[in-house]
Amino acid sequence: MKKTDVLVIGGSAGGMVTALTGKAHWPDKDFILVKKQKDVMVPCGIPYIFGTLDSINKNIMPVDAMMEKNNITSIVDEAVSIDHEAKTVKFASGEVIGYDKLVIGTGSTPVKPKWLQGADNEGVFVVPKDKYYLDDMLQKLSGMRKIAVIGAGFIGVELADELNKRGYEITLIEKLPHILNLAFDVDLASEIHKMLVDRGIKVITGTGISKVIGDNKVSQIELEDGNIMDMDAVILSIGYKPNSSLAKDSDIPVDQDGFIIVDEYMRTLVKDVFAVGDCAQKRDFVTRKRVSTMLASTACAEARIAGMNLFNLHVVKTFSGTIAIYSTAIGNTGFGTAGVTEQRANEEGLETLSAVFENVNRHPVNLPDAHKQIVKLITARYSGVIIGGEVMGGLEAGELTNVIGLAIQNRMTVNNLLSIQIGTHPSLTASPAVYPLIKAAEMIAIRMLHSK
Amino acid sequence: MKKTDVLVIGGSAGGMVTALTGKAHWPDKDFILVKKQKDVMVPCGIPYIFGTLDSINKNIMPVDAMMEKNNITSIVDEAVSIDHEAKTVKFASGEVIGYDKLVIGTGSTPVKPKWLQGADNEGVFVVPKDKYYLDDMLQKLSGMRKIAVIGAGFIGVELADELNKRGYEITLIEKLPHILNLAFDVDLASEIHKMLVDRGIKVITGTGISKVIGDNKVSQIELEDGNIMDMDAVILSIGYKPNSSLAKDSDIPVDQDGFIIVDEYMRTLVKDVFAVGDCAQKRDFVTRKRVSTMLASTACAEARIAGMNLFNLHVVKTFSGTIAIYSTAIGNTGFGTAGVTEQRANEEGLETLSAVFENVNRHPVNLPDAHKQIVKLITARYSGVIIGGEVMGGLEAGELTNVIGLAIQNRMTVNNLLSIQIGTHPSLTASPAVYPLIKAAEMIAIRMLHSK
Repeated sequence: MKKTDVLVIGGSAGGMVTALTGKAHWPDKDFILVKKQKDVMVPCGIPYIFGTLDSINKNIMPVDAMMEKNNITSIVDEAVSIDHEAKTVKFASGEVIGYDKLVIGTGSTPVKPKWLQGADNEGVFVVPKDKYYLDDMLQKLSGMRKIAVIGAGFIGVELADELNKRGYEITLIEKLPHILNLAFDVDLASEIHKMLVDRGIKVITGTGISKVIGDNKVSQIELEDGNIMDMDAVILSIGYKPNSSLAKDSDIPVDQDGFIIVDEYMRTLVKDVFAVGDCAQKRDFVTRKRVSTMLASTACAEARIAGMNLFNLHVVKTFSGTIAIYSTAIGNTGFGTAGVTEQRANEEGLETLSAVFENVNRHPVNLPDAHKQIVKLITARYSGVIIGGEVMGGLEAGELTNVIGLAIQNRMTVNNLLSIQIGTHPSLTASPAVYPLIKAAEMIAIRMLHSK
Repeated sequence: MKKTDVLVIGGSAGGMVTALTGKAHWPDKDFILVKKQKDVMVPCGIPYIFGTLDSINKNIMPVDAMMEKNNITSIVDEAVSIDHEAKTVKFASGEVIGYDKLVIGTGSTPVKPKWLQGADNEGVFVVPKDKYYLDDMLQKLSGMRKIAVIGAGFIGVELADELNKRGYEITLIEKLPHILNLAFDVDLASEIHKMLVDRGIKVITGTGISKVIGDNKVSQIELEDGNIMDMDAVILSIGYKPNSSLAKDSDIPVDQDGFIIVDEYMRTLVKDVFAVGDCAQKRDFVTRKRVSTMLASTACAEARIAGMNLFNLHVVKTFSGTIAIYSTAIGNTGFGTAGVTEQRANEEGLETLSAVFENVNRHPVNLPDAHKQIVKLITARYSGVIIGGEVMGGLEAGELTNVIGLAIQNRMTVNNLLSIQIGTHPSLTASPAVYPLIKAAEMIAIRMLHSK
């Protein structure tokens, strides 16, 4: 029987980063990483294989190369059971590997709801992180024209925009009142909605899909409002569920939502077994409730924590909980969100004060390439603690979102922000006199003053 | 005699933002802002009137429009003396204005050194924030070809690059061993050096100018190493001195370097008199020494502090001291710096650990528009507190620098950074698996581990 110090199950962001971080911290330990497929997709790059990238092969994460470079064994196989008493894992190939520390990074699977009539028709797709499936899907779509994308979260929006670039006729359908509901309040979401429409995408909100119609093969869809539309294909992007059956079947405790139970150091309730990424439990940084945030960046943050602390608590964790922080782009317009939206904060019983500041991301505004920039800042009403932010701008919007992310994670208040120093440059940022984050903070501070 | 609640002397970033912030916090008070010229330049935009911007009129800060919109009186005049007992200011026009609170934001003037022989020749220029001077300079330069830019700080580098775009033959001369010495350590500075050379600029380091040669009009320059070069013009960008004679002559105390003495709330030693921006004293956030940082963004941060606290301490200042934080761009390459360079930290007796991480600002790396990205992170050797960072990348580099700026100002350690969550997106940021700030922190953390 093969034996290793650290066995990592899963070769996507979570597994890979745990292995790399772990090996960097414990260079004398043996690491084996087992992944289900040879080629692993860059997870956030998947929507782009439907448009911008001219080949799926341009979206492959160099996992094997990085493993080899760092002296980590990489195997293609599928774990079928864990014996955590004997500390062994059995694989589909029949191989059994013994471990000292085990890391489960099995990811998530797209939801294909049982209630959706016709969901098994040919032409109905989901978006898994599975190269073979995506290869096949790309080929099948190539002969089609009308595509319905169901669910306007980030993946749905990015897919719709990318497929639209290839000339498909796209209808994006969202059951909730506005697109990107979890990420943006309606002020910012409506900007994105408008951009998608301007680019020729049909966007329908406030009604979901009720039925896929067709004789084995998609021909139409019916919406909850009764509307029927001709379609060649349907892509479901309505959520993902954690891949936790391996853990559950091996008596590693899983919570009621199917996530593997972990503590802040990503340790499961079973000694020497860690879980990271989409399959592992998360707690919201602000509301302290369980959340099902599934982001490669979250997986990487968790993976670093696990990897650094596999054998000892090398690095004490100083931030507790998960913030939803992510960004997207439509053409040259970037969008980002960090923390909670105002809508969700209010739903959770958190009273808020917010401000939206709009200007331009260059100064003087006459510089070529100047772009409208909007920042919404959300604070807890009485303490002034920053709990969320939303950004629209040029391609700097991703890093500007990270500035807000750091403010949230450091539990900065509006007052703190008002005495912070930021760096600016004509062709890289807004003017220092009207830097959007500071201006939004100022608007909130003044409202706090006047409400006294 | 005219009387006002708040009198602001100076219409550039510091004065304007003090007036706007103050008025927002004290809407019932009367504000008068006095500026020397009708049209005020966007300070950071000045280098761009020599290249990218096709007219100097595209670089005007809408001061009057903003004053009017916010009910602040704007006057063009020049203060000649302050009577802080009587609380009045006398102006060049003969007008005397009484104040309750006075804000001095008189800025700085470029240094034209007395020791430089030939400095008064025709064709020798400096770069003041003076529209009339710049108008004239632009016109005079238009008939010339060979220009020496003396001093390779940010202004010198930006000027050289912009003038080069208009087809001038540019020689950039820096007395110190490498360009941008105050902003970047040699690793990053050499990248910028190389880019400038690739763009056709002649860059000379390690030797300064010793003499301007010519019969009233520049014809040659001589360097300290004895080299003589033909030149049509010389632009001196070797530093600025605070405009503090108005304060000094009015018995408002000024320090030995000529800066108006202020406390953390920008209050001078004289009751009811504030000073902000280039003319006001600063203390380094990390080293706690006096520094002569002159940045519009610093002026704006100070102006907000002064404005918010003119009549009462409305907003307690939670960060103490000035960090140098700024960015620049050469073509589509952005550069930024925050805090202290490693070189300066070491000169100040601060032992450091640093790491440089290089990768790409997109993921997958095959996305169009992908750009090399480098982050250098500098920490205090024993505490792991982040004291500086330097960035090279695409146009996101400005906001990425602000992420580092927030880390420094929150006194985050390498450990804090390693448990932070960042947001990423294929076309806006580096991969979450190799986000440069985290990777640089990781390199430092591992060196700290191994050094035990």
